[in-house]
Amino acid sequence: MEVSSSEVEKMRHSLSHVLAAAVRELYPTTTFGVGPAIENGFYYDIDFGGEKVSDADLEKIEKKMRGLVKRGLQMVRREVSREEALEWAKENNQKYKVELIEELPADEPITFYDLKDEQSGEVLFSDLCKGPHVEDLGKIGTFRLDRIAGAYWRGDEKREMLTRIYGLAFETEDELKAYLERQEEAKKRDHRKLGKELDLFCFSELVGSGLPLFTPRGTVLREELSEFSLGLRGKAGFRKVWTPHITKVDLYKASGHYAKFGDELFMVHSQVNGEEFAMKPMNCPHHAQIFASQPRTYREMPVRYMEATTDYRDEKTGELGGLSRVRALTQDDSHVFCRREQIKDEIQQLVKIVRKLYTTVGMDKLRARLSYRDESDKYLGDPELWKMAQGQIKEAAVDNGLEYFEQEGEAAFYGPKIDFMAEDALGREHQVATIQLDFVQPERFGLEFVNEEGKKERPVMIHHATLGSIERFMSVFIEHTGGWFPLWCAPEQVRVLTVNDKVEDYVKEVEKVLSDVVLDEPVKGNELRFEVDRSDDSLGKKIKRATEMKIPVVLIVGEKDASERVVSVRTREGEEKVELDELRGWLEQRSMK
Amino acid sequence: MEVSSSEVEKMRHSLSHVLAAAVRELYPTTTFGVGPAIENGFYYDIDFGGEKVSDADLEKIEKKMRGLVKRGLQMVRREVSREEALEWAKENNQKYKVELIEELPADEPITFYDLKDEQSGEVLFSDLCKGPHVEDLGKIGTFRLDRIAGAYWRGDEKREMLTRIYGLAFETEDELKAYLERQEEAKKRDHRKLGKELDLFCFSELVGSGLPLFTPRGTVLREELSEFSLGLRGKAGFRKVWTPHITKVDLYKASGHYAKFGDELFMVHSQVNGEEFAMKPMNCPHHAQIFASQPRTYREMPVRYMEATTDYRDEKTGELGGLSRVRALTQDDSHVFCRREQIKDEIQQLVKIVRKLYTTVGMDKLRARLSYRDESDKYLGDPELWKMAQGQIKEAAVDNGLEYFEQEGEAAFYGPKIDFMAEDALGREHQVATIQLDFVQPERFGLEFVNEEGKKERPVMIHHATLGSIERFMSVFIEHTGGWFPLWCAPEQVRVLTVNDKVEDYVKEVEKVLSDVVLDEPVKGNELRFEVDRSDDSLGKKIKRATEMKIPVVLIVGEKDASERVVSVRTREGEEKVELDELRGWLEQRSMK
Repeated sequence: MEVSSSEVEKMRHSLSHVLAAAVRELYPTTTFGVGPAIENGFYYDIDFGGEKVSDADLEKIEKKMRGLVKRGLQMVRREVSREEALEWAKENNQKYKVELIEELPADEPITFYDLKDEQSGEVLFSDLCKGPHVEDLGKIGTFRLDRIAGAYWRGDEKREMLTRIYGLAFETEDELKAYLERQEEAKKRDHRKLGKELDLFCFSELVGSGLPLFTPRGTVLREELSEFSLGLRGKAGFRKVWTPHITKVDLYKASGHYAKFGDELFMVHSQVNGEEFAMKPMNCPHHAQIFASQPRTYREMPVRYMEATTDYRDEKTGELGGLSRVRALTQDDSHVFCRREQIKDEIQQLVKIVRKLYTTVGMDKLRARLSYRDESDKYLGDPELWKMAQGQIKEAAVDNGLEYFEQEGEAAFYGPKIDFMAEDALGREHQVATIQLDFVQPERFGLEFVNEEGKKERPVMIHHATLGSIERFMSVFIEHTGGWFPLWCAPEQVRVLTVNDKVEDYVKEVEKVLSDVVLDEPVKGNELRFEVDRSDDSLGKKIKRATEMKIPVVLIVGEKDASERVVSVRTREGEEKVELDELRGWLEQRSMK
Repeated sequence: MEVSSSEVEKMRHSLSHVLAAAVRELYPTTTFGVGPAIENGFYYDIDFGGEKVSDADLEKIEKKMRGLVKRGLQMVRREVSREEALEWAKENNQKYKVELIEELPADEPITFYDLKDEQSGEVLFSDLCKGPHVEDLGKIGTFRLDRIAGAYWRGDEKREMLTRIYGLAFETEDELKAYLERQEEAKKRDHRKLGKELDLFCFSELVGSGLPLFTPRGTVLREELSEFSLGLRGKAGFRKVWTPHITKVDLYKASGHYAKFGDELFMVHSQVNGEEFAMKPMNCPHHAQIFASQPRTYREMPVRYMEATTDYRDEKTGELGGLSRVRALTQDDSHVFCRREQIKDEIQQLVKIVRKLYTTVGMDKLRARLSYRDESDKYLGDPELWKMAQGQIKEAAVDNGLEYFEQEGEAAFYGPKIDFMAEDALGREHQVATIQLDFVQPERFGLEFVNEEGKKERPVMIHHATLGSIERFMSVFIEHTGGWFPLWCAPEQVRVLTVNDKVEDYVKEVEKVLSDVVLDEPVKGNELRFEVDRSDDSLGKKIKRATEMKIPVVLIVGEKDASERVVSVRTREGEEKVELDELRGWLEQRSMK
């Protein structure tokens, strides 16, 4: 089956063949794996048969590619029989191709693409390939080879390790340049790098991978983000609860999670009396137990719980890196237990909270994926309820002016949902918040409340996390801001730099003013976090240090400032003088920047 | 070896013999275990040989005891040979006594006490007993039988189950009465009972014993207490960190904990890749990793971390009850990394924090146990450092006017410590805060900082928890206050009761005033938590409900209040009218009550 490809994809795919042709000329005995187009370019997996090929060789290969392209090339498709294909592969010692051909379904046509010299008609390189390709290789835009990596044949760590050569390819030189600049910027903003430089978190080999430890600075950032998120929901009637991190597996057997995820749980074993527990990978069943702990009436509905609590998920060590994927993930989780008629208002309210949060953190480009059921029988719960809820989800997206797209068949078996994707400063999209309806868990736990007629009614559950995992959100937010956090959540918000010790009395006055500053937006009661650099170092060195730590507001205090009762305020936007009497107001005004 | 006993202990001990004598008269074929004096009274473990004896029989037995005492009795001691003792026990079918006699060391004198009728000289009851006893049973004060319980012989669940009869005994009738009143009050204040009535926490069989879940109300209480404790230390330069709840056991192997407590850890098993972790039962090794994550200099010292985090300790199911002993215990933990010369100031500061916290929660009767090393060789670290630190611990106790006592040989192997005991409203003492020096862990983790001379120096660690375990402190605090929490930490601080719906406009004004109230003592930025009871119920019923939930401040709003622009404020002290304009100030003033 040929999939439709954009022109740029075809161009990238053709370039992987040119790469292979160039390699074959330089290293005639190589064996080829696969060479697809990918985002931003292409690659080819190659078995150099023991010969060492490294980044240093890329220039040579690239030069050869350019030479080939200059000759004027065409890609010519031809269909062959299975026998012809196998014969070609065996003759040319292409064992990986043999494997691929042998696995092709019997009724599938087999195609080859020949890379031909336009003028001489000479075939420079033939390859088993589904295509499609650009026909005229004059139209391949701009490219360069990027880097070399190792890759197991078919991604199987028990198979051969091949050499993967990556190339970049774009339609124009400008696009390539823009891409390289973004890459450069992304490297600078890498949250693992910034996490170390800004002293936000660390890992310890004794503790283990995927288990970050947060330093005082990183903990401030965590807590401000978490407080903001909880505060938004607090205003909307959510109340904090607290649940332990472990539970008997009975809880997940009752909820139905055990049958699905039982073998992914971190199991906890008591050496004292042999009891078995599991670490919680989610919090809904715990919250359902709190709901069930008292008889409920319609007067209390909706009941809304929230908890920023750490869940443990067992990830493969190889998949762990920085904060993007961790084993200890703290969710700013919440659950609504409501009546059917209340679903609409609850969803509307939650969508507003999501918008508010992402706008505040400067990621206001949000897309929503609305996941609905299809007609298959894998979905549980009343179809009428599904229909109504799906309508209300869409209404909430429309009413709140969200950019959205709908996907049938993508709902969870227990209910429809909205997932939010936020774009960061580098244009990358990250999956963040989620709102999920659940018609099943209330059933499994037998949750109920007494309605106006004194009859028992079953509530609906709504799962929601605004930040998602705080650790993962931090990884996004650190890269989004490049470590230049807005004032309200910066670990160290203000640093005072003294010019010399003659200004000490005045610095004490400045400190007094700073001690009284409390920011109230977007987190209430946020007492100012500031430091004074009284070291003997030069002002230049002090400024350099403060800039390296990306302190959003730096106050420079010299003798002239003291005599004029001002401070020199230095931010990323520039420098200005602010009167000491107005400093508090100035800082309060700036909280959200 | 006879231990010296107080008169009241002797009296209680003698009464257990009278109890046994009475039982023997009523049930001649019984076999006796042991019958010691205990706090507030005595008991005797008795094997009734299958006969059912219950609380209903206590009256009859007590009557018989009183009859015996009235005859005028004496306790007479006599020494016997091992053979005589065994002969007596076997003759009288006292198999438990046989067992006890056979286990006595060969060189120990064996004594019997005979309970003798003063006038007739008749021996009513003989018992193998070390004594001591009152001689004249006219001096036995006042007593009563209390209750019956089951008790395994020698506490071994594989041995016989005996019937334990408990008695109360005091020197005066008043003391007994006071004790019974305290018991009655303690029953009313039982935190497990109040926890349910005030909807503070719950347990779920699906989650497991020792794993409490906190409802919204209980979570407020937890968080206010925790915030207060962290806030006190925040002002003293402690900064929050965050660490995961699991770790590779390598961490505890490095810290040295594994060798001591390895078989008590909750082990965590990854089903995905077979890795093994442990749940953290303490936080010091994690915090040491954060200290070790960056090079440190003398300028930063002391480095002070704090974290309210949940530790997991594996307790036997039988030992779990309410919040007093849990498997998930949240410590308001902290660690100081300091120089030797800084130990003194750090301890002084921590002692002040402990005093401040317990005074604020109304438990200002504090006793401190100072635990020192002795001359044995089990203590690690420089003896000079020990001597200095012990001196500074004592100085801190004296300087802060603490009632204290010193215990040699009670220090941990890694350093001396102070443990604090606080007395609650019922006069019961609870172990609470702790300050522990640690000369060993910095050594094991190779912690260091660079001093003024550019040389590497090893810091000292100080472990400190102010509340201790938040759950256990809550169990104490709930019983101490009887559920009448001070305003600042009450889950629901104010409830407005409307008299009828004619006052709705005015109630909205009252709500507006309440929404603006922020209490700043002892926790900053504490926004008022209030509810309005607008139900159709009578005012009487509304008041009853608010009183049952122990809401500290109840505002009653009637038509007269509305026209006069006041509210009727009802607290435990009585009722008063407060002008609406002054309500905010009135509430702010009352925060600590």
